[in-house]
Parts: sequence; C-alpha cells; structure tokens
Amino acid sequence: MTNEITYAIQDYYPADLAHCYGCGKNNEQGLKLRTGWSQEQTLTIYTPRPEHTAIPGFVYGGLLASLIDCHGTGSASLALHRKNGHEPEDGAESPRFVTASLEVKYIKPTPQNTPLKAFGTVNEVHPKKFNVNVEVYANEEVVATGLVVAAKMPDSFGG
Amino acid sequence: MTNEITYAIQDYYPADLAHCYGCGKNNEQGLKLRTGWSQEQTLTIYTPRPEHTAIPGFVYGGLLASLIDCHGTGSASLALHRKNGHEPEDGAESPRFVTASLEVKYIKPTPQNTPLKAFGTVNEVHPKKFNVNVEVYANEEVVATGLVVAAKMPDSFGG
Repeated sequence: MTNEITYAIQDYYPADLAHCYGCGKNNEQGLKLRTGWSQEQTLTIYTPRPEHTAIPGFVYGGLLASLIDCHGTGSASLALHRKNGHEPEDGAESPRFVTASLEVKYIKPTPQNTPLKAFGTVNEVHPKKFNVNVEVYANEEVVATGLVVAAKMPDSFGG
Repeated sequence: MTNEITYAIQDYYPADLAHCYGCGKNNEQGLKLRTGWSQEQTLTIYTPRPEHTAIPGFVYGGLLASLIDCHGTGSASLALHRKNGHEPEDGAESPRFVTASLEVKYIKPTPQNTPLKAFGTVNEVHPKKFNVNVEVYANEEVVATGLVVAAKMPDSFGG
C-alpha cells in the first residue's frame, strides 16, 4: 500500500479556510491531516501522537473520529475538484466542504505507534453533497469504519 | 443551567484506565472532559481551546465528536454505577466503557470561546450496553446532536 500522500487536497484549500484543527496547514497545533487519491479511492495516512490514547497502548476513539471527519471532507473536495477538471497537482484552489454528519463504528482496539490509513470511497448524492464511506486500517486490519456526509461550505458559513 | 460539574465519574475511573485523551485525569495533554448528573440527564461542560477551529471563529467538528464520544462513555458509566448502588461522590471505583459506535449530526456552526454543554439521556439496551442520546448546546442553542453506543470495557480489552 501507499505510504505517503504526495499531492494533498488540503495543501490547496484557500488560505483563510486552512485553519482546521484536523487538516489545516495553517493550524500550528493541529493534526495536519493530508488526503490524496490512491487509485480510485482517497487516502489519508496519520500516526497518532503518544498522548492520543484510549487506554495505554491503544488509540483514542475521538482521534479516529477526527481522522474520519477530515478524511471525509478532504475526499469530497478531491471528488468535486476532479469533476471540475482539476487535480491537486495542478495547483488550483480546491473547494472546501463541511461535515453534515459523521458515523463511526469501532471494529477493534487500534494499536498506538502505528500509521493509520483511512481509505475513502466517494459518491455524489447531490451536486453540493457527497457521501464518503471510510475504512481505517492499522497493520492491514480494519479497525474502524465510517460514513461522512460532506456538504460544500456555503459562502455564508457562520455568517 | 448548571455551570460546572462537581462530581465527575471520570474522577473515579481506575487509575490504570484514566489515560484517555478525551477524559482521562492522568492524560496531561488531554481534554480532561468531566461528566456528572444534571437531574436525570448527564452533563459535560467544555470550552474548546483556541486551536480547536474548523474555520476561524468556529469549533472543529472532530472536537465535537470527541466531546460526544467521552460524554457517551462517561454517561454510561454514571448509569451503571447508579444501577450498582453508587454515585460518584461516594468515592467507589466506577465502571469503564468503550465506544462501540458514534453518530454526530452537525446542526449549525459552533462559535468558539463559548462553553459547550453536552446533555445526555441514557438508555440501557443490554446489561453491558447503553445508548446515550446527546445534545450539545452553545449559548442555549443546539449545535450538534449525537448517539453513542457504549459497551462495558471487557477485561481483555486489546489483549
């Protein structure tokens, strides 16, 4: 399997929308999750920090939820960007999504000190809304699955 | 509404199981979420850190998922502890739960610099499994809702 993301969609989020704690390149303390294409799926790779524990030795479920969340919005952005004729490597500003809903199933305890790989399958359900089915792997085993419904960020977000 | 949790169930988790990034009192870098009874509901109050942004001014969805996650397991622990004849203030060690599944609906953008209050309604669905319906309020408005299915931690967790 791929071991790093070369071209990540988050690298091309508009600078004023790149402060997400999960995936914003402009959030110093954040996780800086990065999502790219892996064949026809999307992929985010992240090794949790030592403090991201549930109980010692195992990864915190909220961290897995965060990984799935940003992987979902990043995947939707990749899909819409491609539909619009762009790939991350062409350097165009990418569309920004918000999470409408998030579901996570915890399949088995997730070991620490292990790169996690979130793979996503994206389906358009509306021109501005995408479903992203996610499987998170640790050591080639599925440790969690998720579904993210991602909606294109309205211009008036929070306004 | 109540503005602080006096007796939190997490204060009585067994010391070797109190390292959760979300709610462990022994996790130095963690969120230290604390959950107690508020009448017949459960309540966790937390003000996100400045870095917990989605876009500037608004709270990161993964932080809301983490709040709902630990609020859910804490609520299940409170409920089972009460069923076993205990309240947090009596000082007995409390049962520890893990999250089987988590659902979050993001209702509206969540303002930063505002205490969030997660209220839970707990239903036993099996002697070792509880459903916790969660509503998260900011400034007395519901900003997110959630459902946590929490299962009593098996002795063999991760083993």
